[in-house]
Amino acid sequence: MTALKIFSDSPLDASNTRLLVDGTAPHEVLFPRTAAASVLAQAEPGPAFPLADIAFGQPDLESIRRSDKLKWIHVSSAGFTRYDTPEFRALVAERGIVVSNSSSVYAAACAEHVFAFMLAQSRWLPQALRSQTPNGSPEWFQLRGDSVSLRGQSVVILGFGGIATELVKLLAPFEMKITAMRRHPRGDEGFPTVTAEGLPAALATADHVINILPDNAASRNFIDAARLAQMKPGAVFHNIGRGTTVDQDALLAALRSGRLAAAWLDVTEPEPLPAGHPLRSEPNCFITPHIAGGHADESGTLVRHFLSNFQRYLTGSPLLDRIM
Amino acid sequence: MTALKIFSDSPLDASNTRLLVDGTAPHEVLFPRTAAASVLAQAEPGPAFPLADIAFGQPDLESIRRSDKLKWIHVSSAGFTRYDTPEFRALVAERGIVVSNSSSVYAAACAEHVFAFMLAQSRWLPQALRSQTPNGSPEWFQLRGDSVSLRGQSVVILGFGGIATELVKLLAPFEMKITAMRRHPRGDEGFPTVTAEGLPAALATADHVINILPDNAASRNFIDAARLAQMKPGAVFHNIGRGTTVDQDALLAALRSGRLAAAWLDVTEPEPLPAGHPLRSEPNCFITPHIAGGHADESGTLVRHFLSNFQRYLTGSPLLDRIM
Repeated sequence: MTALKIFSDSPLDASNTRLLVDGTAPHEVLFPRTAAASVLAQAEPGPAFPLADIAFGQPDLESIRRSDKLKWIHVSSAGFTRYDTPEFRALVAERGIVVSNSSSVYAAACAEHVFAFMLAQSRWLPQALRSQTPNGSPEWFQLRGDSVSLRGQSVVILGFGGIATELVKLLAPFEMKITAMRRHPRGDEGFPTVTAEGLPAALATADHVINILPDNAASRNFIDAARLAQMKPGAVFHNIGRGTTVDQDALLAALRSGRLAAAWLDVTEPEPLPAGHPLRSEPNCFITPHIAGGHADESGTLVRHFLSNFQRYLTGSPLLDRIM
Repeated sequence: MTALKIFSDSPLDASNTRLLVDGTAPHEVLFPRTAAASVLAQAEPGPAFPLADIAFGQPDLESIRRSDKLKWIHVSSAGFTRYDTPEFRALVAERGIVVSNSSSVYAAACAEHVFAFMLAQSRWLPQALRSQTPNGSPEWFQLRGDSVSLRGQSVVILGFGGIATELVKLLAPFEMKITAMRRHPRGDEGFPTVTAEGLPAALATADHVINILPDNAASRNFIDAARLAQMKPGAVFHNIGRGTTVDQDALLAALRSGRLAAAWLDVTEPEPLPAGHPLRSEPNCFITPHIAGGHADESGTLVRHFLSNFQRYLTGSPLLDRIM
């Protein structure tokens, strides 16, 4: 067996670097001169890249284009905006390059994050944690009365995939009415799905709208003034997809008018949103700094996921999270 | 059939008062001159009380003692501290007075509230909502890495009843290791239970400790320095029972030493905790103002629960939430 060369630009600590090197031996791992600061940033192209059969991380497009050896790219994030273009899809198709991503690594954490958003909203936690109101005060009655159980409520999930699948499991005890929007419904999702055409009717009755859309040409500003106007008055909007999929001016207007009860955003455009951005001071807009997929030993999970895909690659089994 | 007289001192709005009056007709509802401000406060004794066969609300002990007609007391809260004494138990036993409470009314909301606490802690929501850190910063990596899934974690629930039963249903998808402490385990709880003797071993491995204990002579300062020292380092403590069950000085010390990672309290002693109380400024202490049982149309739920018990009372069926 010829030893394969794996180029990795993921920012790994010593123990996860060791895990990667040992887990792929006797194949060889090549590293760039400087690792990327995060899975979302792009590393400097490494001089070793042209030698690689496999790229694990966030390889830059020009290096991929120049390579005549590359057979598999394993993207170290769930999002893959920079690769999600007709040109790139044509390139990898022509070269026979397989592309997978790491959506499984982040799916459970992302689902738990947006579920935490939903419950925090349901119990009015941000307001309640600030309040020091005594029992029996008007503010106290309002806090108690504003809490609305998720039980039996309706939820629309924009984007069907690993995160939606995990989220639906967590929501099960609440017996919510779940509808997901999927580009090409297959009928095996386990709950009702609609395409974009069927979305207005679903939005009209949803108490929670959960946006998991990735960033691509079709999704940019998908949540615009028109779609916000289709939502049920008092709905809660959540975004753990990408900030670019939302027209933030329209979102702000929907919050200010009271059309939306609240927005919970883990992603914005840009990131971080400037301190003076009006969404930052909007009372019912809650923003976390793109951490939904984060979890303890994230790099370890990332490497183990790559290694399990590497074994599949070596044995010719179908790759996990294959996207192209 | 002789018309029964029901004394109600619950603070109900016009539509729920109507629901109560219509739902009990042709029996008669008697009201005090002024309704209590909340289900936890005590109303002024009403001059009509001595005529009542049934009391719904928070009747005062002296009025109960003086009554020679009273046969059933339906307490409008889940807690029933003022009635939970040997003297009161002896009195109602001697007079043949049945006592029920409203724990079912608040159980689902309480379970969702503490579940929201658990998820907010798991995802570090208070810290994340304050952060404006850019992707890739040390703070960003820490926020991501500090998030620990509830999946597979251990939880100890102090106090087995309606709230614990509801909570266990919500936790199911997380496949947590659940142990409940119950005074008299019956073996039909559906998961392991221990008595106070078995508690130290359970506390030693619990990631989350959830206190649902009511206030009574046996529970006061139940969570003291010794029990806090039995907890696993880094455990998270939640209290939705009563503030009196916790030695707050010991809790503060456990938070300051880092022994506990965090405390989430819906109840304190006193309520509200004074603005200058050191728990208020403790970074990992999160306090909501006794709203765990709150939910939309709470008074309606309360009246409907009473009415369904009233039908049981009329037909001689076992009462829901009977406590004495």
